[in-house]
Amino acid sequence: MSREDIIFRLAERADLSSIVRLLADDDMGSQRERDEEPLPESYYAAFEKINGDANHELIVAELGREVVGTLHIIFLTSISFQGGLRAQIESVRVERRHRSHRIGSEMLKWAIERAKERGAHLVQLTTHLSRKDAHRFYERLGFKGTHLGMKLSLR
Amino acid sequence: MSREDIIFRLAERADLSSIVRLLADDDMGSQRERDEEPLPESYYAAFEKINGDANHELIVAELGREVVGTLHIIFLTSISFQGGLRAQIESVRVERRHRSHRIGSEMLKWAIERAKERGAHLVQLTTHLSRKDAHRFYERLGFKGTHLGMKLSLR
Repeated sequence: MSREDIIFRLAERADLSSIVRLLADDDMGSQRERDEEPLPESYYAAFEKINGDANHELIVAELGREVVGTLHIIFLTSISFQGGLRAQIESVRVERRHRSHRIGSEMLKWAIERAKERGAHLVQLTTHLSRKDAHRFYERLGFKGTHLGMKLSLR
Repeated sequence: MSREDIIFRLAERADLSSIVRLLADDDMGSQRERDEEPLPESYYAAFEKINGDANHELIVAELGREVVGTLHIIFLTSISFQGGLRAQIESVRVERRHRSHRIGSEMLKWAIERAKERGAHLVQLTTHLSRKDAHRFYERLGFKGTHLGMKLSLR
């Protein structure tokens, strides 16, 4: 598989069930998602908000017309860094059968290029502290693990 | 000083120089901000984008008509968590003279309430790994440091 075989593009409404399937296909995701047919309406409502906001880019990776990966880029304007723009990457997933086939790294490289195109000075993401493999993956792409990501659940 | 003395409100354009002064007043901020008179135009451009986007709330804490703290809340819609809404907190600063006067914790509690009001299921933030005092501060507010925050500079 070469990079040329993979297409990266903005997600469409018709991709939503593939995206939810990818999000649901891990230990934590299986507990918090509802990969059902039809999908719960809340997924469509979120998609419409994301799709209508130029600061959001929900991306799918397509291989042979099949959605095999997804990530979500959010462009964040801040006062800090002299009014700088950051790109935040969330919800990175690659289809289980296609892991270790470099789709993840090509997808991230594509997202980093996209962040540069839009003028971001920084790309940021968080991954669970226990996921040492993911840390190495992102370090190979040039990321530095300098921060502690802290979460407060409101549920 | 009681909680009642502090006013939390959306920042206005006239607060921008106070906010930049707060951002510039630490080791890292002093290197990346330009606390000048007049402020570089890029700060005003960023303020206008933030002010015009309902997903952003740039907050100041006011004590006796003086701006003594700031934080920036960004509401992020995702497909994950069944199309859930998260609140991300960035750029938390308290004026040096007023640290340890509980302004920081009151400001964070206010932001957490705001996140609940808007229906967020999670509040998230990152702090530098070296800032153990900040980790304890956020843990006291209920945050759990579960993630590694990774950054890639594009400059």
